[in-house]
Amino acid sequence: MTDEGIYYPDYLGLDRLLDTQRLESTRGGETVHDEMLFIIVHQSYELWFKQVIWELDSILAIFDQTAVDEQDMGTVVARLQRITRVQGLMIEMIGVLETMTPLDFLDFRDHLFPASGFQSAQFRIVENKLGIRRQDRLLLAGDEYTARFDDEDRALVEQVEMRPSLFDVVERWLERTPFLDHEDFHFWEAYREAVHARIQDDRAVVETNPKLTDDERRTQLKDFDLVLDQYNALFDTDKYGVERAAGRLRLSQRAFQAAVFITLYRDQPALQEPSRLLELLMDIDEGFTTWRYRHAQMALRMIGRRVGTGGSAGAKYLEKSAERSRVFNDLLNLSTFLVPRADRPRLPEGIIESMRFRYEA
Amino acid sequence: MTDEGIYYPDYLGLDRLLDTQRLESTRGGETVHDEMLFIIVHQSYELWFKQVIWELDSILAIFDQTAVDEQDMGTVVARLQRITRVQGLMIEMIGVLETMTPLDFLDFRDHLFPASGFQSAQFRIVENKLGIRRQDRLLLAGDEYTARFDDEDRALVEQVEMRPSLFDVVERWLERTPFLDHEDFHFWEAYREAVHARIQDDRAVVETNPKLTDDERRTQLKDFDLVLDQYNALFDTDKYGVERAAGRLRLSQRAFQAAVFITLYRDQPALQEPSRLLELLMDIDEGFTTWRYRHAQMALRMIGRRVGTGGSAGAKYLEKSAERSRVFNDLLNLSTFLVPRADRPRLPEGIIESMRFRYEA
Amino acid sequence: MTDEGIYYPDYLGLDRLLDTQRLESTRGGETVHDEMLFIIVHQSYELWFKQVIWELDSILAIFDQTAVDEQDMGTVVARLQRITRVQGLMIEMIGVLETMTPLDFLDFRDHLFPASGFQSAQFRIVENKLGIRRQDRLLLAGDEYTARFDDEDRALVEQVEMRPSLFDVVERWLERTPFLDHEDFHFWEAYREAVHARIQDDRAVVETNPKLTDDERRTQLKDFDLVLDQYNALFDTDKYGVERAAGRLRLSQRAFQAAVFITLYRDQPALQEPSRLLELLMDIDEGFTTWRYRHAQMALRMIGRRVGTGGSAGAKYLEKSAERSRVFNDLLNLSTFLVPRADRPRLPEGIIESMRFRYEA
Amino acid sequence: MTDEGIYYPDYLGLDRLLDTQRLESTRGGETVHDEMLFIIVHQSYELWFKQVIWELDSILAIFDQTAVDEQDMGTVVARLQRITRVQGLMIEMIGVLETMTPLDFLDFRDHLFPASGFQSAQFRIVENKLGIRRQDRLLLAGDEYTARFDDEDRALVEQVEMRPSLFDVVERWLERTPFLDHEDFHFWEAYREAVHARIQDDRAVVETNPKLTDDERRTQLKDFDLVLDQYNALFDTDKYGVERAAGRLRLSQRAFQAAVFITLYRDQPALQEPSRLLELLMDIDEGFTTWRYRHAQMALRMIGRRVGTGGSAGAKYLEKSAERSRVFNDLLNLSTFLVPRADRPRLPEGIIESMRFRYEA
Repeated sequence: MTDEGIYYPDYLGLDRLLDTQRLESTRGGETVHDEMLFIIVHQSYELWFKQVIWELDSILAIFDQTAVDEQDMGTVVARLQRITRVQGLMIEMIGVLETMTPLDFLDFRDHLFPASGFQSAQFRIVENKLGIRRQDRLLLAGDEYTARFDDEDRALVEQVEMRPSLFDVVERWLERTPFLDHEDFHFWEAYREAVHARIQDDRAVVETNPKLTDDERRTQLKDFDLVLDQYNALFDTDKYGVERAAGRLRLSQRAFQAAVFITLYRDQPALQEPSRLLELLMDIDEGFTTWRYRHAQMALRMIGRRVGTGGSAGAKYLEKSAERSRVFNDLLNLSTFLVPRADRPRLPEGIIESMRFRYEA
Repeated sequence: MTDEGIYYPDYLGLDRLLDTQRLESTRGGETVHDEMLFIIVHQSYELWFKQVIWELDSILAIFDQTAVDEQDMGTVVARLQRITRVQGLMIEMIGVLETMTPLDFLDFRDHLFPASGFQSAQFRIVENKLGIRRQDRLLLAGDEYTARFDDEDRALVEQVEMRPSLFDVVERWLERTPFLDHEDFHFWEAYREAVHARIQDDRAVVETNPKLTDDERRTQLKDFDLVLDQYNALFDTDKYGVERAAGRLRLSQRAFQAAVFITLYRDQPALQEPSRLLELLMDIDEGFTTWRYRHAQMALRMIGRRVGTGGSAGAKYLEKSAERSRVFNDLLNLSTFLVPRADRPRLPEGIIESMRFRYEA
Repeated sequence: MTDEGIYYPDYLGLDRLLDTQRLESTRGGETVHDEMLFIIVHQSYELWFKQVIWELDSILAIFDQTAVDEQDMGTVVARLQRITRVQGLMIEMIGVLETMTPLDFLDFRDHLFPASGFQSAQFRIVENKLGIRRQDRLLLAGDEYTARFDDEDRALVEQVEMRPSLFDVVERWLERTPFLDHEDFHFWEAYREAVHARIQDDRAVVETNPKLTDDERRTQLKDFDLVLDQYNALFDTDKYGVERAAGRLRLSQRAFQAAVFITLYRDQPALQEPSRLLELLMDIDEGFTTWRYRHAQMALRMIGRRVGTGGSAGAKYLEKSAERSRVFNDLLNLSTFLVPRADRPRLPEGIIESMRFRYEA
Repeated sequence: MTDEGIYYPDYLGLDRLLDTQRLESTRGGETVHDEMLFIIVHQSYELWFKQVIWELDSILAIFDQTAVDEQDMGTVVARLQRITRVQGLMIEMIGVLETMTPLDFLDFRDHLFPASGFQSAQFRIVENKLGIRRQDRLLLAGDEYTARFDDEDRALVEQVEMRPSLFDVVERWLERTPFLDHEDFHFWEAYREAVHARIQDDRAVVETNPKLTDDERRTQLKDFDLVLDQYNALFDTDKYGVERAAGRLRLSQRAFQAAVFITLYRDQPALQEPSRLLELLMDIDEGFTTWRYRHAQMALRMIGRRVGTGGSAGAKYLEKSAERSRVFNDLLNLSTFLVPRADRPRLPEGIIESMRFRYEA
């Protein structure tokens, strides 16, 4: 940068940025063309991880307070949306890396040993900030996920584990949702009846349907009982606790109720942003799940059944880990217990009023 | 169409095409807005299934002969590439359908019972033409995959099972690959030695590495023995037969060898199109796997743990089925047994000559 | 459909849907393989046009009223977002069609004469519903855009021209925006001063910058005067009228002011949905512009400098038309006149209060 | 890196890579959240430019020889394909940057003055390596495109101008195409007759079509004459020279002829890779054109009619430059002069033989 103002290459630190591509194959004496792609793709991922962390930090700062300023809700929604767009890029980048064939990869793969994507501290930080917990993780060839880090990186990653995650702050924000109880309206009770009535109706259809064989009838009634059990657990604090302890639910009961409320009455002005936020949390879960799955497919193609450079069980590990890394799983489960709009408990006018703006358009 | 030439809407049959969107919710008395999206998305899928079948049929016609005309290889590669582009659309369409929320879906879901995507005959035909076999399929709530079809559709789908699939014709084409044996060069023997030497070298490194603990050394040596076993099965006809019978390999031994040869020497002019073809088969497998996985994620989001409209186990079924529907799995496994370019057996001049064009550029 | 419930193929009308692919080359005696792709792509476009019309109609119904119910804003935003996702598909489909080479197209192109995409009534209906006016359109080889339709289609398309477009209803909705005047706060006056001050500051920097040559200084000052002129036209009703008559602005002055207000104070709870709506209108314009541009590129590649099948000037026509088909151009121009957040006029508490919800979280 | 092997963060130079994000707004005293996105997007672009240059360099090295080894054709095709995938990312990244609103941009835009994307030396190097010439470029506010560079960057960029571009080496490779003349077969003569016959046939249809008005007939006949003129220029060396001097054609006449030959007989084994290469050159042109166009749309949205930070005419400049930056324009024009497969001159057996492999499959 001169005193005449900023020069684009200085602004972006291009001299350093474009000097960090050091091919191990070149060091080894024979440059392998495709190693450059391998490096650029991974560096690009790290840049985008930095961006995602930047967005998550800003969202955590807004949410980690006793009350979220409504003025900030639009900002939070926009930043979550941005993360989903970055995830789109991340998934697309796998396709770019796949232009390298297994044979090309073999030409420099040995040079990389034992480096591994598992040593990306930033990616672990993203996971921890979202709310993946140590108990949600698979062991990596018998080791904790932090085993491959040097001390500095391990400390960084573990520090984040200590701080509130997006899951934590969203859970608390959900718990603070007003409207669920108002004079003699108690949403959770009313909702229980609505779901119950619906299940009974459906059950009656099955019981009296002359077209069903006895066998089919039995099977379908058993299905209803199963749904009923699941649903009963939502209302009984003890049963809910059991589900939670078993890891089948993660949100507190109160937060879960609020999430159902927001989803059911999403058209109310005051719930439009909150419901959009819940949807985006599912989008982000889905984005990472899809990325992990595609990553696993790519690894399968690149190394077959070999072990990964980091000594992991390779593609199989990655595939399994895709299943376990959903943070907002409860929001998916929530769909199991929705009722159609027509069956929703009717909201009292007082609540509806308080969910509107007071101006006249 | 008038005698003055073709009119675009007539050419495309728009009067019929645009008259097939009949909302069940409208029949039921109250139009649900999002049912239109549901119908359009599924109709659009069916149009693209028809296109994929059209491409597959043309490829099958070219390959299902005693020899494939080299002039047709470019065409086949282009059409497989087209299928991968269509798969890109199919995956993107899931994102469009996801703009419908679970609550929107509930508003018309009951009307659809018991219709189900499992009743898409065209999709099953695509699967059968690719080479998914009855034994590869999951039962659907205890039933064969054809149980939900009417007689006509079932007959159509089962007919395709009888005919050679893409897998079958590609296997036979691979088996006819020349070049593997030439005078005193026997590729498969030479390759065996190359892999063996490499494994021994790697083993020696592990055995003598002073940094490894005894425990680590043991584990890593066990890994080598495992790879060695897998690799031995490729060379021993009996062991290969065992693997094949157990479903761990599907291609014939000769076809598998040819696939390795094509992959290793892909730069040879005569192998450029064949190796591209093998890659596209993996792309197509990956495309459908990704689509199925994304479909499963969407179902999870839309219906939670409920059963599907067709009575299937819903999202779980779809996820499992994504794993089992790879037709060209062996091509992935092949990566496990590649050697770096430097270790490849050297081809005799005679073979190299016969893989070139004879003109002078 | 039987009385046992709905059958998927019946629900989707597959017997008719999949019977509408009639290749002209087949009629002509020799099936050209790629004509199927051509038909399927165009049919798929027509299905999606139907979907877009469906969404636009529902949005028009919500907006074409004396007041828009706040409860519907979330729905409108979601449906506009859905349109942008459909546009993503539409753009992707061009890539699929491009898997057909010019040589493949030539093999059946003559059969299509004189049919043309210009005969898609649905696409013209989409344009008209968005708000493209007859005067915005290019003549097509000297003819009105409706010249190639049969009487029925022409009537349909022209009927839509008569009805309020999305542009019209959004303009009226903007004009109704409250908040712009409140006691002694007059947004437009305050804003004028803010812009003015900023321009003066910037001007002073240029006037006193010792690094500039006289020539550079003159050029930059001329630029400032130009911006000042444009900006003055926004405040002077007569000048605004001149700009509008000349087609450089389309929104009424009041609507334009409201759009600036919404954009500047987009964080206010009551403006989060409206500002998102304005952004989506720009997204949709951009989506169609990009699609038209890509379409033009594809046509260029497919037919070179030949005339189109419909007798149009081909690729050149399409490229030109991409430029002229933005409906919400004013929203882009709006960026020219924004001020940074720090320079925004400060809103009185009364207005801020009325843009919040009244509950306590 | 320790002596225990490579550590992933060291391999990627993460300490430096992740230390290059220096927000000017932070230096100015108040961090603007979205400046991080702005930096990361641009850095990511620079990484990918480096990758594209890496691929182009390897392709130039292969092609800049007296003969291209056939073994390398598959590699070249694969690397061009990779570039198109990278372009897909580049286009997608615009959508990510668009998650920043104009108001967000204004908050730090002044800090960047006068830095500008026009100062990306790497991007200019990509353009020069592809084959954009100085005369193809627009002046930038009256200046040469190199005016904003510092001396070092300017020297780098201008050096590349001196070296053979992809256009140059492809042109020479095309000129070396064998097959065009063989004993008494002369492709270009035979092709001239084929095109001529076709135009005469089409002309006869127009002359005798009773449905045309005199006016329509006149217009269409004039069109034919125009096409005939264009086509005549291809065969007459003098006229071709005139077209070339006027910038309407760029390839040498011999190279143009070879490109037509390759396109028409693309199914021949020896022409499958070459025709794929020509298509990829068009894909790459189209990729950059689309990217520039989308970039222009984004700029329009972000800054309206303001001038760019680099003092350019902003969006208008970008849009215009999209039109002028096609390097392989002639390949598009080529479509204008293709004939359907049925009308192609018949190749003598001798040529067909020399375009096949000599082995028996």
